[in-house]
Amino acid sequence: MTTMTLEDNAVLDPVMRDRVEQLQLRYIHAIDDGPLDDWPSCFTEKCLYLIQARDNADRGQELGVMRFITRAMLRDRATATQHAAVFAPRTIRHLLGRSLIDIIENGEIRARTNVAIYQTSPDGDTMLLVAAQYRDIIVEDGADLKFREKRVVYDTFRLPDSIVYPL
Amino acid sequence: MTTMTLEDNAVLDPVMRDRVEQLQLRYIHAIDDGPLDDWPSCFTEKCLYLIQARDNADRGQELGVMRFITRAMLRDRATATQHAAVFAPRTIRHLLGRSLIDIIENGEIRARTNVAIYQTSPDGDTMLLVAAQYRDIIVEDGADLKFREKRVVYDTFRLPDSIVYPL
Amino acid sequence: MTTMTLEDNAVLDPVMRDRVEQLQLRYIHAIDDGPLDDWPSCFTEKCLYLIQARDNADRGQELGVMRFITRAMLRDRATATQHAAVFAPRTIRHLLGRSLIDIIENGEIRARTNVAIYQTSPDGDTMLLVAAQYRDIIVEDGADLKFREKRVVYDTFRLPDSIVYPL
Repeated sequence: MTTMTLEDNAVLDPVMRDRVEQLQLRYIHAIDDGPLDDWPSCFTEKCLYLIQARDNADRGQELGVMRFITRAMLRDRATATQHAAVFAPRTIRHLLGRSLIDIIENGEIRARTNVAIYQTSPDGDTMLLVAAQYRDIIVEDGADLKFREKRVVYDTFRLPDSIVYPL
Repeated sequence: MTTMTLEDNAVLDPVMRDRVEQLQLRYIHAIDDGPLDDWPSCFTEKCLYLIQARDNADRGQELGVMRFITRAMLRDRATATQHAAVFAPRTIRHLLGRSLIDIIENGEIRARTNVAIYQTSPDGDTMLLVAAQYRDIIVEDGADLKFREKRVVYDTFRLPDSIVYPL
Repeated sequence: MTTMTLEDNAVLDPVMRDRVEQLQLRYIHAIDDGPLDDWPSCFTEKCLYLIQARDNADRGQELGVMRFITRAMLRDRATATQHAAVFAPRTIRHLLGRSLIDIIENGEIRARTNVAIYQTSPDGDTMLLVAAQYRDIIVEDGADLKFREKRVVYDTFRLPDSIVYPL
């Protein structure tokens, strides 16, 4: 287990970049493969999880179709999603690019990561649900990296009526 | 050339992760760019290559639309595919996420990797062929990493009638 | 900041691979997130940027729908694109696989990278614009890696009438 302190000059450090990628992978596989209970554990206790349209993000607005500010809220959401019987089961598949680390400063890593999210409906057809970008603030939390902020900024603004799973 | 022994605590080792990624890249580019003869060389002599629906995989069933258990069988398939004149040429393009390494144990690496596979038909249109996940068991074989098992678990169960190329 | 000389045996070096990936990320984010002025800075002063169909690439032809041979030409293109008012705004999103480094020789890295490029139209629908492969020659240029050649070889030959942004 490698631990290291976030330093401002760590931008090009491969180990740190690798740890960032691993956090992103844990995040998407918790959604795609489950259990969804692992999803909140990718965040710090106080955090921001925000799904928002690119227009809003670029204007600096905090409006979003989903917004949570604590890990407890994320846990409630994960539980509710797993027990909701109102929607037909569907399969989510994240295709994730690598993370571009913009800056490491004051113990925070700011990174952008492109993502395409596919959804397979109960009748077996797969469609692109959304093309988006994660804009994250990542910090050390104990021995792990976690998301202090994760903004899912989506290009596709004809979203399906209800986003069931986190993106 | 770096070689190293697979140890149980190697999960976070960047060199090992890099070698896993390289194996995945060799695999997809053998299919996408050819020659397809390179495809079997990504596997151990005795192996499992299985294409199966997610439902079957999750129920632990070994049913699949394509199933090979030796490298010799993979070679036969590669040869047959390249000489078959019954289908129009098409172009395959794999978009591959990074590999989430779940465990390294007893000299085996178990990894999950999301993949989207696109197919361009002879008239030039590109469509998503399948969204899937590779569930692999990877081992040292001489100086290289190779697949002892590669399960292509697909979400999209409306597959085209005939899967011509390996996925 | 790590610098190193390109040596012929550097194929498996993780730091070098990481630097290649970072160059690719800078390239796609200059297009997706802007400013597009950063896009030419990914190339050497004399360079080749060529968008061409796979058939032409495989026949060794230099024909292409876009072809530039100096950074100054790329800068002109970037400026023109940003000031052109004749087209409706659209959002581009690159999903990029990892780079397969084929060879490092004479100070040149030759790499292949699969890419899927999505476009979101002004009415908010996202479509796959093109599935393609970057075939690059990358060199040291001062402290950075840069593209001496970038060939965008596309599978999808029903391209939209006008390619507005670089691919």
